[in-house]
Amino acid sequence: MTLSFFEHPANTREEILAAAYNAIYTHGYADLTIQKIGQEFDKSSSLLYHYYSDKDELLLECLEFMLERYGEHLAETDIEDARVAIDELFDTYLDPKPDRSQQQFTTVLVELRAQAAHSAEYREHFTRSDRFFESKLADAIEFGVEQGTFRERPPEPTATLLYTFLIGTMMRSVTGTDTEWQPAARTELDAVLEATLYRSEET
Amino acid sequence: MTLSFFEHPANTREEILAAAYNAIYTHGYADLTIQKIGQEFDKSSSLLYHYYSDKDELLLECLEFMLERYGEHLAETDIEDARVAIDELFDTYLDPKPDRSQQQFTTVLVELRAQAAHSAEYREHFTRSDRFFESKLADAIEFGVEQGTFRERPPEPTATLLYTFLIGTMMRSVTGTDTEWQPAARTELDAVLEATLYRSEET
Repeated sequence: MTLSFFEHPANTREEILAAAYNAIYTHGYADLTIQKIGQEFDKSSSLLYHYYSDKDELLLECLEFMLERYGEHLAETDIEDARVAIDELFDTYLDPKPDRSQQQFTTVLVELRAQAAHSAEYREHFTRSDRFFESKLADAIEFGVEQGTFRERPPEPTATLLYTFLIGTMMRSVTGTDTEWQPAARTELDAVLEATLYRSEET
Repeated sequence: MTLSFFEHPANTREEILAAAYNAIYTHGYADLTIQKIGQEFDKSSSLLYHYYSDKDELLLECLEFMLERYGEHLAETDIEDARVAIDELFDTYLDPKPDRSQQQFTTVLVELRAQAAHSAEYREHFTRSDRFFESKLADAIEFGVEQGTFRERPPEPTATLLYTFLIGTMMRSVTGTDTEWQPAARTELDAVLEATLYRSEET
């Protein structure tokens, strides 16, 4: 799945958020200024200063927008097969050669998530976002149990383990140059899920 | 295990590295300056400017020092029981209430690792550091297989999976406020290792 929440901005606000999303990918958080965000924005930079008093206000709104859109996307997507859904998730995040759009998405999230180490506002956002995605993962696992393709088990602890692993894959994939670990981790993950979660065909 | 590579600096260089380690914990990467590092340093700040031309040069040397010391620490530590070693590792990184020293260590590593999303020098460091820790984890697993406490299996893929999960635990623990996920992840991790790696007592 390619995440392109910013490809077709519907109004000036979304154009500003798209500019911020592109600017942080280009410059990184530490070097980012409202002025540099303005360079990614087709209209007058003074609009940015009019709406946002500092870069964090704008970046936090950008994160909120992405979380909302991701939520809408998931709400519109019916899971047909829980195992396929989990496969697709890790196909995306353990791809050693992600497309540019996925690369940007992961980079922006890692950069902004790291701000939470020093900012209560970012921490509040990511705590909320973690709860949301972990609960969605638990829903998918519960659905697999109901479908009979997954073993009977409480879905939450498995969701927590998989989600924490997912955060690790995001962090590693944009902060190291090796790409052998992704296929190795993928094969091992499949083996673990076969041994603990998936019900084998013949059962 | 409490990591205190900076508690007893042996010379001026180590005092400077300790000051950088403390300053990044206090201020975060984006707000860090050589001047702020100077405030954590007992001697004249002009020494800092004499040795280091910018904060990244100093922070990269700080990372290198930590990696060397961690390597020395591991070289001096004989693993007596591979399962105990893995238990202790995750006791440390899945502790919902880490002590201040562990909290600082994780925070500093997450902040600096996130710089690798935009800096080739940081990326080079963390690629090297990942290879080192992953190979140490593989050694521990191999030792467990030799001891007969772990099942016969190639150690590298398991090491990759566990190490990626470990990076996720570090990222989550300093960027969110929830603390229920750590014990849940720990219980589930134990269940997964029982099902895939550990040889049960009666076998």
